[in-house]
Amino acid sequence: MAKVTQLIDNEVFRAYVTYATIILLKMMLMSCITAYYRIRRKAFANPEDVPFGKSENAKKFLRTDTDVERVRRSHLNDLENIVPFFGIGLLYALSGPELSTALLHFRIFAGARILHTIAYLTPLPQPGRGLSWAVGYVVTFSMAYKVLKTALYL
Amino acid sequence: MAKVTQLIDNEVFRAYVTYATIILLKMMLMSCITAYYRIRRKAFANPEDVPFGKSENAKKFLRTDTDVERVRRSHLNDLENIVPFFGIGLLYALSGPELSTALLHFRIFAGARILHTIAYLTPLPQPGRGLSWAVGYVVTFSMAYKVLKTALYL
Amino acid sequence: MAKVTQLIDNEVFRAYVTYATIILLKMMLMSCITAYYRIRRKAFANPEDVPFGKSENAKKFLRTDTDVERVRRSHLNDLENIVPFFGIGLLYALSGPELSTALLHFRIFAGARILHTIAYLTPLPQPGRGLSWAVGYVVTFSMAYKVLKTALYL
Repeated sequence: MAKVTQLIDNEVFRAYVTYATIILLKMMLMSCITAYYRIRRKAFANPEDVPFGKSENAKKFLRTDTDVERVRRSHLNDLENIVPFFGIGLLYALSGPELSTALLHFRIFAGARILHTIAYLTPLPQPGRGLSWAVGYVVTFSMAYKVLKTALYL
Repeated sequence: MAKVTQLIDNEVFRAYVTYATIILLKMMLMSCITAYYRIRRKAFANPEDVPFGKSENAKKFLRTDTDVERVRRSHLNDLENIVPFFGIGLLYALSGPELSTALLHFRIFAGARILHTIAYLTPLPQPGRGLSWAVGYVVTFSMAYKVLKTALYL
Repeated sequence: MAKVTQLIDNEVFRAYVTYATIILLKMMLMSCITAYYRIRRKAFANPEDVPFGKSENAKKFLRTDTDVERVRRSHLNDLENIVPFFGIGLLYALSGPELSTALLHFRIFAGARILHTIAYLTPLPQPGRGLSWAVGYVVTFSMAYKVLKTALYL
């Protein structure tokens, strides 16, 4: 395992930092898309969120909407997949991979997750979303394999 | 980018460690609040969780409760916002910011998320919760901007 | 606080890397279990996911299933607990604990979360799941206490 003093000025670590930040920002964007659909579809989760009508009128806007729920599932899927990428990717970046191999992992993962969101929200016909999910999943496993091969200490 | 050897004894990294730990502990507290409301409102998600009555009686306690769902939404909102803060904040702490600037980011985020939970669970009238959410969101974006400016490597 | 240059070749950090990766992989496995139950129970969340029948027929498979929802709750509980473990554990591994103490924390947490999943999916009678959740929770708090004792900087 290479030393972190070198890695922090190192291109692998900088590449990790760049792609991890981009993909976390993409995940944060889902909150805004949810808010947009809640307002447009007039489908809210909390009585205090309804921006129009008196309280007796507000109740009918406390409902679920298929598009809002779709965005929320997409957001949760991001959490379920981007959290392992962030964690395993950080440990991977510290395990001293080749720059070209690391860039390949980070770029494919970021691309796959952006495609996943597009496929979920459009929605595109399957297996578009399924494949983009699987690609990100396999990339994360590949990094985990490298991490465990380098650092295993049970 | 400063060296990690210096940063680990460094005040910026120690400040990050402190606020990240505090805000993760706050998020963990939501599990206990959920459990408290589930028991108090007698609203459970799994048949084996119902602590009273025979199995034929247990079914009526398998229900959703508006207060339990409110706590769960608050917990999920924490996950959606504290995960990016933890990740981007870690990379930000390694990107060599000024101590005073970093402390400002960490303190405002931690304060905003604590206010968000209070506003969600009370509940306070809007835009209390919306503003506290937005403040934490903007702080995370501001850190991401600094990270990408320092480390960008595509 | 020990230096990261030493820690990266250090047994504590390698132990953290190993157990964090294992437990993130376990969390990722929940996606596959969810997909398995969705197909087996024919209970899907999106119209485009239904792999059989024409679109007018597909609607009856857009339903919730108690087993699918159970796996999803288990997955969400993983997110709520493994995210704080990953974050606080990383900071803990950098705070210079004894190797034997650190291994004890990591092993108990990993074991408790694996038991938690088994108890949730079987399902085992309570307090099996509750105890395994509580053990992981206490381990994370114990690490957070050490982190704050070492690094506190408000």
